[in-house]
Amino acid sequence: VRAASGGGAVTLPPVGLERLSLNQITISQWTLPELADGCVRRGISTIAPWRERVAEVGVTQARRLLDDAGLRVSSLCRGGFFCAASERERRRALEDNRRAVDEAAELGTDCLVLVCGPPPGRDLEAARSMIADGIEQLVPHAAAAGVRLAIEPLHPMAIGERSAIVSLEEATELALHFDAAHVGVIVDVYHVFWDHRLAERIAAARDRILGFHVSDWLRHTTDTLQGRGMMGDGIIDLRSIRGWVEEAGYDGPIEVEVIGRPLWELDGDDLLALVCERFVACV
Amino acid sequence: VRAASGGGAVTLPPVGLERLSLNQITISQWTLPELADGCVRRGISTIAPWRERVAEVGVTQARRLLDDAGLRVSSLCRGGFFCAASERERRRALEDNRRAVDEAAELGTDCLVLVCGPPPGRDLEAARSMIADGIEQLVPHAAAAGVRLAIEPLHPMAIGERSAIVSLEEATELALHFDAAHVGVIVDVYHVFWDHRLAERIAAARDRILGFHVSDWLRHTTDTLQGRGMMGDGIIDLRSIRGWVEEAGYDGPIEVEVIGRPLWELDGDDLLALVCERFVACV
Repeated sequence: VRAASGGGAVTLPPVGLERLSLNQITISQWTLPELADGCVRRGISTIAPWRERVAEVGVTQARRLLDDAGLRVSSLCRGGFFCAASERERRRALEDNRRAVDEAAELGTDCLVLVCGPPPGRDLEAARSMIADGIEQLVPHAAAAGVRLAIEPLHPMAIGERSAIVSLEEATELALHFDAAHVGVIVDVYHVFWDHRLAERIAAARDRILGFHVSDWLRHTTDTLQGRGMMGDGIIDLRSIRGWVEEAGYDGPIEVEVIGRPLWELDGDDLLALVCERFVACV
Repeated sequence: VRAASGGGAVTLPPVGLERLSLNQITISQWTLPELADGCVRRGISTIAPWRERVAEVGVTQARRLLDDAGLRVSSLCRGGFFCAASERERRRALEDNRRAVDEAAELGTDCLVLVCGPPPGRDLEAARSMIADGIEQLVPHAAAAGVRLAIEPLHPMAIGERSAIVSLEEATELALHFDAAHVGVIVDVYHVFWDHRLAERIAAARDRILGFHVSDWLRHTTDTLQGRGMMGDGIIDLRSIRGWVEEAGYDGPIEVEVIGRPLWELDGDDLLALVCERFVACV
């Protein structure tokens, strides 16, 4: 008997640091200006900021400091949270999503990450329809701004607090309702690595992959929100997954998004050095 | 746009207490003799013991006290943990599984629940092959003892510590390698409810469903091992899932398996009363 398989292990050469995009939450101890300085010191060319950290300096000022530092933005995190019990709240969520699109455009990225939001009640199918409707209503504004919407399936343990979209299969099926020019998916290893048909799911997302995120799953995970591990400290076969993502045609930035509370106690430069070392060694 | 759907919501009448099987871990404050007494007081006819709690009194004595109490056993929890880095450890695991089969037979149940075990390293496919091999080697012994092996897919968050089999789709594909007389699956709502094609997955497990377990997913889950909620306290649409399981031909006991640490502080009789109330109201 062989276990069901979605694809073989892949032997790939290491990836260079020019593919690395530093997701801001990885080094939460830094403000956006500190992050920009740190990246320049380390020769990192690309970052992925979070909206609330951009808001600390203002979008216009953020764009100016990133330009001055010569930094590109791979994506903005995040829009989404489409579900709500009332029509009024859903309309408010849509307005906030339009602002997120505008901020992405102003920051010079064509990719807005969508964390789609948890179900308001027990009806998962209704929640998923709200999400589909929300994206449908957001697409025209995003298309006009030249911003693509990237549905990020979250780990199934995030269903109660973050997202009713919890598998890559589901995210891809949802994305395929829309034009590839406007809607795609994020493949974040942390959220999807457990899937026994992952290679197949990634192949099915061909031409829809708008981002590839890396971190690691710690064997003993106790914090469901901020318990991610540094690449190499967990059990994810990062290189095989990168191989499948590249076979599916994705050759863009690889975002390091490690949401790991203990790491935020470290010195930012030391943490960034570790990120770079592990990126080359493990991704 | 409609979200992908595996099946509509189901309107069903409540289920009666005669379908309830009390999984022992739900009332961990009770020993097996206390559990038997408590079930008799409450008119519960069926339980699902755990091996280590059976071992506290010994299997022979356990069988005697259950017979004296007129209690049936729906399943024994648990065999499995097939993965290991060395051949020697895997052989030892197989021996332990054979003992688990014998204990199930001695307790008068034809169902041994398998929690398949986490991957020893990063190679998930290798781990899944070890599990398939382990089951294949266990089947002859189980068949001879009249015990069926019930693969329980665990929630994907359990992959590092408990099981490399983390979706119902995967468990069913694995079970289908074997004769339906010998190997099937457990549908535990806690582990599988997030699946956007759950109704389809359950239908695909037709004639393979050897057990149906209920509890609830608390919206804010902080304990990944012992953080399950009582039915009705979380976001799982229990009745719809029961409908899909019944449509797939399962009409056996429904095990209440709430692994919820805070509940173990309660008085056992009070907790059992709550289990019964919520079983009728929510399942």
